[in-house]
Amino acid sequence: MKGDGKGDDNVVFIGKKGLMNYVLAVVTQFNNGENDVIIKARGKAISRAVDVAEVVKNRFILDAKITDIQISTEEITGEEGQIKVSAIEITLNKK
Amino acid sequence: MKGDGKGDDNVVFIGKKGLMNYVLAVVTQFNNGENDVIIKARGKAISRAVDVAEVVKNRFILDAKITDIQISTEEITGEEGQIKVSAIEITLNKK
Repeated sequence: MKGDGKGDDNVVFIGKKGLMNYVLAVVTQFNNGENDVIIKARGKAISRAVDVAEVVKNRFILDAKITDIQISTEEITGEEGQIKVSAIEITLNKK
Repeated sequence: MKGDGKGDDNVVFIGKKGLMNYVLAVVTQFNNGENDVIIKARGKAISRAVDVAEVVKNRFILDAKITDIQISTEEITGEEGQIKVSAIEITLNKK
């Protein structure tokens, strides 16, 4: 289950697309047999990552639980050199 | 330690002000003797809540640890009636 161009199969990176794109991506991972899906986001996308996790567990995968939430600071190279940005990783588990 | 108009003393609600306003509010709570400070935010302010927690522990209160992060969905009454919004609560502890 590799080679989809997105890195690890059970990780969904949240970007600037609409909410339901990411919800569908997470639901698809569970339907493909993953037990854990990790939702990752940085900066302003962090709010959307929380939305994605909540919508998945409240509307689509009702037996999914949030088993871990980690926040951190990452250094990324932006247009103005090295900048620090907050990041989140939300782990959803479905038994 | 009540009566500041913000409800529980050890809770900091994140709104639309600049980041450092909230960082200062959290640091002040710790300096006033609180062992736990809870940072709460809803909707788009969730990203800023994560920034506040990271800046407090990385730059100001170096022995503070994140001991709990909870996310949830809250129903609030907006201009268009009842809407659902994601929320986060980040607990920082300083021993």
